[in-house]
Amino acid sequence: MREFMVKPDPADPRLTQRVKGQDQDGRPIETSVVVERPLTLFLNAQEVVTMMTIGDYPEYLALGYLLNQNMLKLDDEVLAVDYDKEIDTVVVRTRARTNFEDKLKKKTLTSGCAQGTVFGDLMEKFDDIVLDPQAVLKTSWLYRLTKKINTVPSLYLEAGAIHGCVLCEEDRPLVYMEDVGRHNAIDKIAGYMYRHGVSPHGKLFYTTGRLTSEMVIKTVQMRIPILISRSGFTAWGVELARKAGLTLIGRAKGARFIALSGAERIVYDADAREVVEDDRRHQRKASVGHDAV
Amino acid sequence: MREFMVKPDPADPRLTQRVKGQDQDGRPIETSVVVERPLTLFLNAQEVVTMMTIGDYPEYLALGYLLNQNMLKLDDEVLAVDYDKEIDTVVVRTRARTNFEDKLKKKTLTSGCAQGTVFGDLMEKFDDIVLDPQAVLKTSWLYRLTKKINTVPSLYLEAGAIHGCVLCEEDRPLVYMEDVGRHNAIDKIAGYMYRHGVSPHGKLFYTTGRLTSEMVIKTVQMRIPILISRSGFTAWGVELARKAGLTLIGRAKGARFIALSGAERIVYDADAREVVEDDRRHQRKASVGHDAV
Repeated sequence: MREFMVKPDPADPRLTQRVKGQDQDGRPIETSVVVERPLTLFLNAQEVVTMMTIGDYPEYLALGYLLNQNMLKLDDEVLAVDYDKEIDTVVVRTRARTNFEDKLKKKTLTSGCAQGTVFGDLMEKFDDIVLDPQAVLKTSWLYRLTKKINTVPSLYLEAGAIHGCVLCEEDRPLVYMEDVGRHNAIDKIAGYMYRHGVSPHGKLFYTTGRLTSEMVIKTVQMRIPILISRSGFTAWGVELARKAGLTLIGRAKGARFIALSGAERIVYDADAREVVEDDRRHQRKASVGHDAV
Repeated sequence: MREFMVKPDPADPRLTQRVKGQDQDGRPIETSVVVERPLTLFLNAQEVVTMMTIGDYPEYLALGYLLNQNMLKLDDEVLAVDYDKEIDTVVVRTRARTNFEDKLKKKTLTSGCAQGTVFGDLMEKFDDIVLDPQAVLKTSWLYRLTKKINTVPSLYLEAGAIHGCVLCEEDRPLVYMEDVGRHNAIDKIAGYMYRHGVSPHGKLFYTTGRLTSEMVIKTVQMRIPILISRSGFTAWGVELARKAGLTLIGRAKGARFIALSGAERIVYDADAREVVEDDRRHQRKASVGHDAV
């Protein structure tokens, strides 16, 4: 795959809006803000969730969400993904009724809520996944990736207040998705991989968001062995990464990073003199980030 | 109310964990990470949601969530809030069955999902709320508040990767809550206000998180007329704020900020020479923030 097969399109007029306001001295200003829209997802006749999204790839988002929540399995045959712009709805249709729909039906009849079922299923599958032990991450790739991702035009640079996720291979960013929530961005990449038959083999995953349990679970669900972020960690994220054998790298800014799981996959080949600090103009803030280790 | 009635307790051993890892040169390091735990919320016999939280105030979180989602009304009589640490569960018990439970029952029987109902209800109530038109925000308060909030010891300064929300009055931070999600932090404050009968009159709300539709809706639900953030905006957040007459201030860092709604409440009384830029050590990053306007 070539570099930036998919990348942000900050010029797309559907994704940002110009808004007037006032600055700290009471002077009129105009600025760009990101547009968010509700999108209600159905799996066949079952309403699943209403998400807030920038709305650029509803079909990938729908598929990726269902796959990452383990509601759709790789052997479920998807007949169609129908997006209706007028009513902000996307319907994923499968040939046979899914296992998830059966479970949900049963659960809803007894307790009226499906939360527990879904989470239980997710953890059950999580325990069975083995991530490629041969995968490596060269520090030279990491530095080059970060630089490319931070400097390519994006909604982030245009309007801020948005998360990015990037599927990478060696030092090449392949698919760069943005969305108001980091979960939507990762789900859109999962949907893209599913639709285009992209193998997780040899891939790395980069996110601007924090390394929480949910981000770790989704990356593992996608069979990607290495997860990198500018932002920090939560304890459960670290615990799950260690359990799954996921390489977890956080607080990756400029020449610095910390690995709290799977450090054995890291190859320290970067020449420190080559590492340029992020250009100030392109310096991306960590999500609720923190400078000190 | 006095300053910092509630504030973060970074020394609480339940809230952070020391974790070993490696840095960018392969050297062993040890760092603090924030602990997140699942908490399943019931309203009487109805399972509502499973949240990820740091777990410091499960009772406030439960009450605030239900109030902000409009599932619990101010005239529902709460008999007890029972937190069970062993099974990560909190149950809010009311004297009579709530309107929300009735609606959910009906809705679940027909479509198996309650998402639409809840959101519809929320917007219905949203339209009726009138925020205090007399409320003001002096820029001198804003600068003093930011400085106090950024320099008081917090989990953010200890471990990063956490959001903060603060209920304020004039230049005094009153209740400062942190949590892995900004929604939990605001909900804990709503629960605190409900439990202790704190009036929204004359209050300001500060958050480290982005000004999305959900944050605007929750602030309006809490009847607080002014919402301030270090982070950026989404278009729908701005639209809802304008509709509700909420003063919405974002990208508040150092001496700078932008108001995109309700700027008529701002009193520009700060002397620019007095405004000290954030001390570098305490400089807090905006959540997926952005330096340029």
